[in-house]
Formats: sequence, C-alpha cells, structure tokens
Amino acid sequence: MKILIINGPNLNMLGEREANIYGKNTYGDLCARLNDFSNEKNIEIEIFQSAIEGEIVNKIHQYRNYDGLVINPAAYSHYSIAIYDALLIAKIPKIEVHISNVHNRDDFRKNLITAQAVDGIISGLGFKGYELALEYIIATTA
Amino acid sequence: MKILIINGPNLNMLGEREANIYGKNTYGDLCARLNDFSNEKNIEIEIFQSAIEGEIVNKIHQYRNYDGLVINPAAYSHYSIAIYDALLIAKIPKIEVHISNVHNRDDFRKNLITAQAVDGIISGLGFKGYELALEYIIATTA
Amino acid sequence: MKILIINGPNLNMLGEREANIYGKNTYGDLCARLNDFSNEKNIEIEIFQSAIEGEIVNKIHQYRNYDGLVINPAAYSHYSIAIYDALLIAKIPKIEVHISNVHNRDDFRKNLITAQAVDGIISGLGFKGYELALEYIIATTA
Amino acid sequence: MKILIINGPNLNMLGEREANIYGKNTYGDLCARLNDFSNEKNIEIEIFQSAIEGEIVNKIHQYRNYDGLVINPAAYSHYSIAIYDALLIAKIPKIEVHISNVHNRDDFRKNLITAQAVDGIISGLGFKGYELALEYIIATTA
Amino acid sequence: MKILIINGPNLNMLGEREANIYGKNTYGDLCARLNDFSNEKNIEIEIFQSAIEGEIVNKIHQYRNYDGLVINPAAYSHYSIAIYDALLIAKIPKIEVHISNVHNRDDFRKNLITAQAVDGIISGLGFKGYELALEYIIATTA
Amino acid sequence: MKILIINGPNLNMLGEREANIYGKNTYGDLCARLNDFSNEKNIEIEIFQSAIEGEIVNKIHQYRNYDGLVINPAAYSHYSIAIYDALLIAKIPKIEVHISNVHNRDDFRKNLITAQAVDGIISGLGFKGYELALEYIIATTA
Amino acid sequence: MKILIINGPNLNMLGEREANIYGKNTYGDLCARLNDFSNEKNIEIEIFQSAIEGEIVNKIHQYRNYDGLVINPAAYSHYSIAIYDALLIAKIPKIEVHISNVHNRDDFRKNLITAQAVDGIISGLGFKGYELALEYIIATTA
Amino acid sequence: MKILIINGPNLNMLGEREANIYGKNTYGDLCARLNDFSNEKNIEIEIFQSAIEGEIVNKIHQYRNYDGLVINPAAYSHYSIAIYDALLIAKIPKIEVHISNVHNRDDFRKNLITAQAVDGIISGLGFKGYELALEYIIATTA
Amino acid sequence: MKILIINGPNLNMLGEREANIYGKNTYGDLCARLNDFSNEKNIEIEIFQSAIEGEIVNKIHQYRNYDGLVINPAAYSHYSIAIYDALLIAKIPKIEVHISNVHNRDDFRKNLITAQAVDGIISGLGFKGYELALEYIIATTA
Amino acid sequence: MKILIINGPNLNMLGEREANIYGKNTYGDLCARLNDFSNEKNIEIEIFQSAIEGEIVNKIHQYRNYDGLVINPAAYSHYSIAIYDALLIAKIPKIEVHISNVHNRDDFRKNLITAQAVDGIISGLGFKGYELALEYIIATTA
Amino acid sequence: MKILIINGPNLNMLGEREANIYGKNTYGDLCARLNDFSNEKNIEIEIFQSAIEGEIVNKIHQYRNYDGLVINPAAYSHYSIAIYDALLIAKIPKIEVHISNVHNRDDFRKNLITAQAVDGIISGLGFKGYELALEYIIATTA
Amino acid sequence: MKILIINGPNLNMLGEREANIYGKNTYGDLCARLNDFSNEKNIEIEIFQSAIEGEIVNKIHQYRNYDGLVINPAAYSHYSIAIYDALLIAKIPKIEVHISNVHNRDDFRKNLITAQAVDGIISGLGFKGYELALEYIIATTA
Repeated sequence: MKILIINGPNLNMLGEREANIYGKNTYGDLCARLNDFSNEKNIEIEIFQSAIEGEIVNKIHQYRNYDGLVINPAAYSHYSIAIYDALLIAKIPKIEVHISNVHNRDDFRKNLITAQAVDGIISGLGFKGYELALEYIIATTA
Repeated sequence: MKILIINGPNLNMLGEREANIYGKNTYGDLCARLNDFSNEKNIEIEIFQSAIEGEIVNKIHQYRNYDGLVINPAAYSHYSIAIYDALLIAKIPKIEVHISNVHNRDDFRKNLITAQAVDGIISGLGFKGYELALEYIIATTA
Repeated sequence: MKILIINGPNLNMLGEREANIYGKNTYGDLCARLNDFSNEKNIEIEIFQSAIEGEIVNKIHQYRNYDGLVINPAAYSHYSIAIYDALLIAKIPKIEVHISNVHNRDDFRKNLITAQAVDGIISGLGFKGYELALEYIIATTA
Repeated sequence: MKILIINGPNLNMLGEREANIYGKNTYGDLCARLNDFSNEKNIEIEIFQSAIEGEIVNKIHQYRNYDGLVINPAAYSHYSIAIYDALLIAKIPKIEVHISNVHNRDDFRKNLITAQAVDGIISGLGFKGYELALEYIIATTA
Repeated sequence: MKILIINGPNLNMLGEREANIYGKNTYGDLCARLNDFSNEKNIEIEIFQSAIEGEIVNKIHQYRNYDGLVINPAAYSHYSIAIYDALLIAKIPKIEVHISNVHNRDDFRKNLITAQAVDGIISGLGFKGYELALEYIIATTA
Repeated sequence: MKILIINGPNLNMLGEREANIYGKNTYGDLCARLNDFSNEKNIEIEIFQSAIEGEIVNKIHQYRNYDGLVINPAAYSHYSIAIYDALLIAKIPKIEVHISNVHNRDDFRKNLITAQAVDGIISGLGFKGYELALEYIIATTA
Repeated sequence: MKILIINGPNLNMLGEREANIYGKNTYGDLCARLNDFSNEKNIEIEIFQSAIEGEIVNKIHQYRNYDGLVINPAAYSHYSIAIYDALLIAKIPKIEVHISNVHNRDDFRKNLITAQAVDGIISGLGFKGYELALEYIIATTA
Repeated sequence: MKILIINGPNLNMLGEREANIYGKNTYGDLCARLNDFSNEKNIEIEIFQSAIEGEIVNKIHQYRNYDGLVINPAAYSHYSIAIYDALLIAKIPKIEVHISNVHNRDDFRKNLITAQAVDGIISGLGFKGYELALEYIIATTA
Repeated sequence: MKILIINGPNLNMLGEREANIYGKNTYGDLCARLNDFSNEKNIEIEIFQSAIEGEIVNKIHQYRNYDGLVINPAAYSHYSIAIYDALLIAKIPKIEVHISNVHNRDDFRKNLITAQAVDGIISGLGFKGYELALEYIIATTA
Repeated sequence: MKILIINGPNLNMLGEREANIYGKNTYGDLCARLNDFSNEKNIEIEIFQSAIEGEIVNKIHQYRNYDGLVINPAAYSHYSIAIYDALLIAKIPKIEVHISNVHNRDDFRKNLITAQAVDGIISGLGFKGYELALEYIIATTA
Repeated sequence: MKILIINGPNLNMLGEREANIYGKNTYGDLCARLNDFSNEKNIEIEIFQSAIEGEIVNKIHQYRNYDGLVINPAAYSHYSIAIYDALLIAKIPKIEVHISNVHNRDDFRKNLITAQAVDGIISGLGFKGYELALEYIIATTA
Repeated sequence: MKILIINGPNLNMLGEREANIYGKNTYGDLCARLNDFSNEKNIEIEIFQSAIEGEIVNKIHQYRNYDGLVINPAAYSHYSIAIYDALLIAKIPKIEVHISNVHNRDDFRKNLITAQAVDGIISGLGFKGYELALEYIIATTA
C-alpha cells in the first residue's frame, strides 16, 4: 500500500513557527515519526512539502493512482480552489489534516475550501493526526 | 482510563437515517463496535445518547473529571452555545466527531460552534472516527 | 389512517399568548376542534405538545411509521436543525403549520429551517390551517 | 361568493415545466380541476394567468372587491414589490399558493416578498393547495 | 411580593466555570446571597436553574402571575426564540441579568434575542446584578 | 416647454391605497392638480401611468427629447434596472418624485436603483413634490 | 413665519469644494440667495452653519418651536444618530436638502440616517433645493 | 435550422445608448448584420425585441421547439427569475449574449440570474458575440 | 467617594423627547433625583451633559481619577469609537446606563460600541438605572 | 498574427477531470484541435499550461506584445488578483474562456476576479469556446 | 515650508493610554520630538490636537493653503465622513499617520474612511511615523 | 545591518504598469534608487522579486534572521494567508510598503491580510515609501 503525504506552506518551519500553537517538534521530527509509523504498519509513504500552490496541484495529479492521500494544505486550505479542483480529480481515499484546531483561531481560517473535496478531516490532534489519517486509510482500504 | 462518549440528536436512528450519508449500520452496531474497541484497548467507556440539548450539558458536567470526552453533537454542533459553554468547563481531552464530512453538505452545517471548544475534530471518517478519537486520547493521556 | 400532530413551545398558552396575532381561542379549543374534525373525517390522531426540542425529535422518531405528520414547530421552526434532521428520517407525508403568517413578523422569523424538510407549509390560516393539513394528507394518502 | 385566482409567469407551461417538481398535469388540468371544485362548492371563480407583472397588478385592482383572492405569483413572489403593493390595496381575504415547497429549492426562492402582503401561504401541496385556499376563504368568509 | 429567578445552562457550575470571567464564588454562594437579600428585603423568591430550554419555557408559563421575573438565560440569550416567546406571555416586570459584560466577549454573544422581550437588562455587574434587578422590581412594583 | 410625467404601478389607486401614507386624494385629483399647475405655469405636460415596467421604458424612449421628465417609479424604484437603463438614455433634466418619505418605511424600500440615474430626487412632500419638480425644471431649463 | 436653515460640515467651503459636484457658487452666494428668497416670500429665516455635530443638535433644540426646519446635514446625514434623535424632538415641518444627488456618489453616502427623521428629502437640485424646501413649508403651513 | 434571437429592454436604443460602452451602431445595424449572417450561414432566424419581461417569457414559450435560442436579457439578466424559469422550460441550446463585459460595470450587474439557466454566456464581444453564439449552435447542433 | 455622571446628546430634552419611550419626567427631574440620591448615600457626584462628542471625551479624561463613572452616551453609544477609546483610559469602575431598552428599538441601536469599554450595562430601567449604577459602584468600591 | 493561449491549473487533466462537466476529451485533444484551427485560420498560436499562478503572470508579461490573448485561468479566475493585475498590463485583445458555465456551479465560482480585466468572456461552450475566442480576435484585429 | 499636524481624540493622553500599544511616551514628548525635528529640518510646523470632530474640520479648512498636512485622526479615522470631506478640500500633500498598526486590532478599526482622502498612510511605526511623514512632504514638495 | 526587500507580482513591470497610478519609473529605477540609498546609509540590502507566492514564502524563511524586512506583497497583500503565516515566523522588524494608496482603489484591495502580520505599513508614498521603511528599521534597530 502506497500513500502520498503532502504538506503545504510554512509547515517546513515547524518547531520554530508559533510553538504555542504547533508545538516544539520540527518538521524533521514529523517526517521521522511518519517514517517510523509507516515501517511499523508496513506501508510505503511519499512525503512532499511545498510552499507553491501549483506544485501541490501537480503532485496530486502525479500520484493520483496511489492508495491514499493525506494532505495538510496549511494556509491554502482557506482559499485554494486550484487544490480543491485537483483533489476532486484524485479518486482515492483523501484525508485533510490540520495540526491545530482551525475552528478557534483567526476568522479567516474558518473558511475551509479544500475540506469540501476530501473524504474526511482531522484537526487539532497534532502530529498524531497524520498517524490517525494513515490508520484510517489502512483500515478502510485493506 | 475512563472516557465519556456523547451522541446528540437523531444518531439513535443510524441505519435508518439518510443511509447514503451515514451508512447502513445502526446505532446498536456503533455501540457494539465501541464496546469491542474499548475492551480491546482495555479502557472503560460510558456511552450516552440524547436529543435533549440540556441533558447533554448536564452529562458533560457530571463526567467532567473523566479522562477524556468524545462527543458527536450532531445538529447541535451548529447552534448550541449551551454545549459550547459546557465543553469549556470540562478541562479534559475533548474530541468532536462527525460521521459525515460536514463541510460538503448543507450551508447551515458549515457553521461550527461547539468545535471551537474542543481540542480536535474528526469529520467524515464514519464509525472509525470514534475509534480514532479514543485512540488519540489513549495515546496522549497515557 | 393515523396522523401525528405535534405542537411546539408556547402553543399550550394559546388564548393568552399575543391574542392580536394568535386569536382568543385556547390550546384546549384547538385540541377539541382537531378531535371533532378527526371524528368527522374518521381518522385517528395523536396530539403532542412540548417545549422541549429533544422531546419533539423523539416523538417524530417514535411515530415515524404513521400515515402522516402535521407539525407546528413554533419558535423551533427558525433554528432547530435537530428537528429538521428528525423530519428527514420520517418518510411520510409531513405538513408544517403556522397559525400566523410568519413572513410579516420579526425578521428572525423569516429564516425557516424545518420547512426545508417537509412536503408543504400552511401559514397564516389560524386553526383552520391544521384542518387543511389533515385534509391534504387524507386526500393524497387515501 | 366570487373568488379571483391569479397565476403568474410560466404556470401556463405546467406539465411541460420541470415535471419532477411540478408534476405531469397541465395548466388545463389545473383549470378544469378548479372549475369542478368551484361547481361542487357552489362558488364563482375567475381564473387569470399572465407573465406580465403589471397585468397582474391591474387584475388585482380590478377585482379588489371580490370575496377573496388566491394568487400564485410564481417567480414574481421573490422580487415584485409592485404586486406586493397591489395586494395591500385589496382588502379581502388573500392566500398565496405555491405548487412546490419553495423553501428547499434555489436560494433566491427563499426571499418571499409578496407573502408579506397576504393573509396566509400554502406551499408544496401541489394543485390541492389551490383547493385548500378556496376552502379556507369559503369557511372563514361565509 | 413573589419573584421568580431563572438561571440558564452552565450557571450551576459557577466557581468552576471560567473564573476569570465569572469569579470564584459558586452557584450555591449565589443562591445563598439571593436568599439573604430576599429575607432582608422581605420578599419571597423562587430560584430555578436548568440547562433544558423547554423547562425554562415551562417555568415562565407556570409563574407568569408572580410579581416579577429575573432571568439569566445564559447561552440561550443568544438564540432561544422559544424563551423569547415565553417571556412575551408573562406580562410582569422582567429583567434579564448577565454576570459578565456580554458585549466584549465572543462575537456570537453580541446577538441578544431574549433581551428584546424583557423590560430591562443588567450586564457585567456580577452577582450584584441580581440584587439590583430585584431592587428595581421592588421599587417599581411596590 | 414640454415635460413628461410618468407614474408607476399602483399610483392609479391613490386615495384608496394606504391613505395614512399617501393621503386621501385620488389619482384623478393628482392629474387635475398637475394640469392646473401646468396651465398656470404655461407649460405643456404629458401624464402617463402604467403598472407595466416595459411600457415605462418605452415611454421614456419615446419622449426622450422633451424638455424634462418627472418620474415616480413607485415600486420599480427599488429593483428596475431596466428603467434605470432607460433613464440614462434620456439626456434631459430628470427628477424622481416619491409621495411618501421612502427612507422610513419597509427596509426593501431603502434600496434606490432608479434614483442613481436621475438629476435629483424629491421624497415625502406629497403631491406638492410633483409641482416642485416641475418648478425646478422650469427654473433651470428656461 | 420663521424657518431655521441648518448647514452641516464643509458647506461653508462651497465654491472651493469639489466644484464639479457642488458648483462654483460660494456659501456666501447661497446665503445671499436664501435671504433674497425669504424677502420675496416675506418669511423670516435663521441660517446656521457648523462643523460640530453637537452644535447642530443644540441648534435644533433651541429653535424647535419655529414654523419649519430646512437642514442639510452634509456628511452627518450618513452616521449622526445624535442629529436623528434631535430631529425627532422638533415636531415641526422638516425637510432635508442635499445639493448633489447622494445616490450616485460613494457607497458610504447611500446610508441615510437623518433622512429617516424628517418629513421629506430634496436631493440633487443644487441651491434651488433649499428654495423648494422653503416653498413646501410655506405652502403646507400657511 | 431555426434560431430565435431575443433582445431585452433598451437594446432598441443602441447607437444612442451609452455609446462609449455599446458602440455607435444602431439596433437596426445589429438586425441587418444578423440577417446577413444567417443568410450566409443558411439558417433561419427570428429576431424579437421587447422591454416587457412577460413578453420575453411568452416568446420563449412559443419558440421552445426551435433549434436554438440566443438571448440578451439586458437589464433583466440581473433580476428576472421569471425569464430564468422560462429558459429552463426551453430544452434547446441556449446562449446568453452581452454586448459589454458586465463584470467591470456597476456592482448590481455582477449578479447574473438568467445566466444560470443557459448553456453558455458570451460577454463583452460586441455585436460579434451574437454571431459567435449562432456559430456555436450551428456547429454543435448540426 | 466621588462619581462622575455623563449624559450624552438629547438627554437634556427628557420630558419632551418621545415620552412614550423615555417618560414624562424632565432632565431637571433626573438631576434632582440623582442629587437627592447622592445626598442620601453620602457621596459626591458631578453631573455633565453635552451633545458634543469631543467634550464628553475631554470630560472623561479630566475626571479619570474619580471613584467611578456612570455614563449614558445616548446616540453616541452606537458609533463613537472616540468615547470608546476615552473610556479605556479611565481605569475606574464604569457603568453605561440606558433609560430605554435599546434592544427592541431601531436596528441601528443594536450596535453597541461604547458598551465594549465599560464594566457593566444597565438598560431599560428608566431613571432608576442611574441609581442602581451608583449603588453598584458604592457597593463594590467601598 | 500571433496569439497566446494560457490554460490554468488542472486543465491538463481534462478527460479525466469531472467528465460530466468538462467532457471526455483530453487536454491533448484540446491542443490538437487548437493547432488544427490555427493552421486553418493561418495564425500562429503559443499554448501554455501551468498550475502555478506566478508562472501565468510571468507568461502574460512575456507575451504582452502579441496580437491577442486567450486565457482560461480555471480556479484562479475566482481569486487571483495577481493575474488580474498582469492582464491589465497586457494592452492587447484578451478573452477569458471557461469550458463549463461557471454561473451554475459552486457558489465560490460566481466570484469572477480576472474577468474584470479582459475584453470579453466566453463561458459554457466547451472546447468550441476557445475557437470562438480566436475567431473574435482575428475578426476584430485584422 | 509650513506644515500642519493634526492629532485627533485621546492622543493627548499618550503615555497613559494603553501603553502596550502606544508606548510610554507622553503627548508632550511627541510634540517636543516634532518640534526638534522641524527645527533640524528647518521647517515650520503648527500642531493641533482636539477631541472635537468639527474643530478638526475647521482647522483643515483654515490651513488648507499650507505646504502639507500630517493627520492622525485617531478614532475618527474609522467613521468621520466630515473629516474625509474636509481633507478632499485641502489640495496639498496629506499623510495620515497611525502610531499603532490598525490592521491587527479591533475589527471596527479595519474600516478606514479618512485614509481614502489622503495621499499616503503610515501606520504602526510609532512616533517615528510622524517624522517619516514630514520627511516625505519635504522631499516631494521641495 | 542587512535588510531583505521583497517585491511581489507585477512590480517588475513598473513603468509600463498603470503609469497614472504607479508612475513612469521602471523597476530597474526602483532597484537603482534602493541600492543608492543603502550605500548612502551604509547598510546591506538583498532585493528579491517574484510572481510566485510560494517563492516569496521561501525567501522569507531563508532570510528570517536578517535585521529587517521590507515587503511589497502587491496583489498577494489581499489574499495570501501563506505569506501572512511566513511573516509571523520572521521575528524581525517588518514593514509592508505599497506604492499607491490601496484605500482608494478597487474594493477588493481594501482587504489587507498580510498587513496583519507586520509591524507597520507605508502606503501611497511611491518609491519614497521603501526608503522611509528602511530608514525606520535603521533608526529603531540601531
């Protein structure tokens, strides 16, 4: 089983970025944790991070025949119709993950565009949210 | 470890209720699944269902010293400030679960009130969402 | 033929409640009139009144296999997504009745939530509205 | 007893117009049914149909001393302040009828202007709605 | 002189609930203080607390012939048209009390529904607000 | 000097229409008064009344080379972009007149569309408003 | 007959202020013209200009027993509830005058607050608007 | 192949109407050009112009079995639900044409109602837009 | 103990101003009552009334070290950010008083700006509201 | 004659992307068709596709001296002010093309930003829309 | 070179006013610093502070022929159309200065009215903002 | 001292782009001027321009330990939450610069997202704005 994991803009700065909201662990820590988890679960993952909206669109196209997609569009969650359209094209299990609870932050984060094109959303559960998303795909696809 | 699970209005009608959205399994099936899961994980759960907003408020008060709370406020997610206020009082890990993806249904379901008072939200992952919520509480509380 | 009639909050105060809008007849008068009408039409009716949103939800569940439902959700017409969801579950003829014309009163009464889940609405025709609703169900179900 | 019945734009196309919403019966069928009903009830009706907003205004003026008015303003329900003003002038029992339930269709149909100038509204009960409207006028005027 | 005092959802948790906003005194402290005050003022009070919207509606009906009503609808202040309607029925002096200043908290607390159906509002003056409300009723009713 | 006077829907019912707002004088009285005034001022007027939006558009086209236009679009003031467009074509002095003060009536009367295409507006001065409009055209055109 | 004429902020700069909108005549020209007109009509006028909202409020109080009031609140037309309240107190004929047509300028000029408290509005007719307002008061008061 | 071409209010004034937006050619020029084009393409066209909303509705009904419809509803594009409903009835290829680009003019022209009921829209291409619309119908219907 | 009492625009016209809302007692009556009350309570009060927003700002600055502030900003309650800012500077107990219940009057009175900068609000309790405000300050400051 | 054709995000997935809306032909088919068409019309075209907003901006700059521009900004139509600004710089004939009718899809597609910076828009006419756009540029530029 | 510097309401309280936002330096410090700066730059400045909107309007009129204007309208920035109108009259270089960054404070501070009538805005740079504004005027006017 | 200067989309087209708004000087001129200025002030600057949102995000990350940041996000100012998030990460002095006054242009330019994440904003002062921003950083950092 192969699963694509996409992380949007500024997530590469985890650890340094608003630690009170995102915690102190770095993006490297997140990747390490996801690699450990995938080994343990015996699945193959491809992790991709970019700040460029169009590269995320392209990556979704490229891996649209994988077994699943876990995406944290970060800031783009709130306005990228381009990523929304790309997600509709990938007809595989798709989970959107947010590290923080987007519902009790800035008002402009309450508008969720990409969330309308995925199967499910996990928000506010920290790095653990990614693992739960993978677990869901494994459980329902297997 | 003791965890309270609250289900809001109309969830007792699962199986009969809009099966294209919620699936064919009944509320009994959900409870059985959660009991199995809790046995497997060796935790204690209390499941409560009510259509009465105030009873949900009272139940949250009563169990506010449990180790965690999983709540699917159903329709009340979108307008119950009373449940929002009650959730703020319970200073324990709190996860809001929705069986369906509330972001691509009726417009009035995009307004999420109670979600602003919990730690995290899992939406659109069916019954599995409850298990993932429990798993999160177990993982982070233990 | 069996039809459930549900009346929401404050309708038990008819006669005393804003007589310029609702008229001087009491809730007892309304019930008596509906019983007379059902005898005359040879149908069986169950009348239920409650101020508690969740009890109305439960009652709809309980009688969802009746031949029809006439509901005046009163104040809940304007914000109860819980009753809206319950109405969707009852796959029987459903008519929403309002004694007054809700379109020329307070602004907040112009927002009709539950009306989106019924077959038809009769508004502004006083107690007669209930009889017309029953008549419609009789005529179209028989 | 004399009652004016007004039908607005596109209702003359019933049967052909969105049959899933309006049913398969034609405008001729509706007129025949209303004529039968009026004979049975021993009342006199005048049926008028027009797509021209101003002609509907004029017709309301002309018959403003009849015993009652049943009007389905169709599309004009949602924006005609001219018909709203005309209805205020006719100080007779006035019922607005909609064949379909306007509350669960396009968003722009939720704005009801003319409904603010009538005594009552019947919506979603098909052709039967016209009969119930007539019945109400007969019952309350006699 | 008999006065009904109604407290809405979550007020029974005072002392534990957001102490920075509501203070450290408990609901028991509030009741004791009100009882002392009523003794001192030589009036009779009935204190009622409930999280259930419909029970508050019923209580207003039941005591609608008392000499006055002091109500803190808490969360329901912001959306309960049912309580608004019930308050209109009780034609006695009615004061709405809020312990905190609702005007500088969450945006959704700026919408005041029930306040439109009372004589006056006292907001932000802590427990003292209840005493001032009683004092007003005593002063203007005597 | 030739001036066109256009009156929109329902103005032909003056005297009968909401006398508390429009006064008791009839449309005939208005026309007589305007004819007297024009004689006195030695100008020629053409008075036109219609409930049909498109006829008003056509009339504006037809007389677009007159010396001035006084128009009371009545209900159409609030939504007729068609009349707005027609008014832009007539490059002559144009005054919009309202008998009542439209700023303190229904909310939907606060939206003034046609007023954006005229030179000036006179509102709330009764029949006198028409005379003042004529007077303005005479004074500024002469 | 005594009439108060009030001019709001920046009107003292007429002639210099946006001549394409307000024309080239100065405030002195306006006053002279109004004095001439009042002599001709044999009435007494008091002209007052101020940029200070509260001074306008005070002036309205002071002359509230005059025979009429002509007011151009200028910028304050769009937000001064204080002047709105003051106008309600003066129970005399009140006309609001605007030199330009406020309906086709900035969006924030479409909100008319003070206009809701006067008898009539004349907008867009230049200095002539003041004369027509006086004429109306003379004609209807005499 | 027979195609109906409908032009809404004020288009008959082309040439005279806001030439900076619509150009200097007259409505007669447009008709001539369309007749030439239809001859060249060997199709039959019926051109209809009216300022009366209801006449446009009727015309759509009458020709609803033609091979195609090109409509420029002009001002009615922005509010006529009546024409929207009529367009839904005509189950033939339908193109809405606007001579100017409606997206960079008045704000009230950004609301497009009738465009929701046609197959395609061509906006801003002048008279050429009509020809392209015909060309599309010919190309796709043949 | 020294307390400043500020009254905003038009309150000097009490008695004459909308007596159905504000009662028949004059501003002099209010001052007399407050002076009596302060004598009885043995406190010192400074009463200030002005229609000029900036004078109210200045007065708040000047007395910002008093023991308390009671302010009825009247119309300015709804738009004066200047007074809001001034109130933030005075770090003393501050109560906003409204004679009428501002929640069931004009829509534009529902927007409360200054109320966001005070400790508490008393609304709808007539002149008594001022006394209760003073009483609160005395009780909590002493 | 040289014309630049730009296609925005996800258009490279045509054929696979929501075939019910966009049809079954692939992006390759579209390009082939456009090349054939340009050959036939004897013009030179440059086709560019990108999911990256900034690359589209750069491409517009680069070719801003071509004879015309046909652009389908896809998702970016609804929020890219950057592309809007770039289009303003290219002072050549510019047509925006949409394959589907954007007016009857998701609400967020009704907001058209880039359309405000082009000469015309063709929407809903499938691949044919591109050809008509080219045809327009040829016809009006030649 | 002569430059007018205007400071709006509450700025005279600098140092005492929300020091976390505005800093600890007093208004006297600001004036001293500006005087030093003007000496150093060899320009003449006139500093004016007032809480009265109309006085600010008058001051702008009075000095409208100076070489430049630096204005911090404080609270009035967000609603004073009167000052906006006055600024339009002064056809000299005009810079609006805010000590704090108004874009990340209260929502009601995001509405900037007066900023629409000046040449440029400097916000969030503390007292230094005034100096930069003066520097700009000197550099561009000299 | 090292300062990063970022320019967003379309700024590379200065001189050619809407010269009435941005002036006739080119982007090269701007860079030359900034280089001269930095030499004169003896600071080191890094100038970066890109139309690609994500590249701007990356650049902010890369230079987040510089002594200051001057950014003109151009079009992205109004919708890029990604750049907003990146700015929050760079905990150095940050000034947003706009060449034109964004407050009196298109409505969609009034929404300022990135401005909420910087220390200050300078808008409308042309190229000089960049120099003032640098000057501020030098003055306050040194």
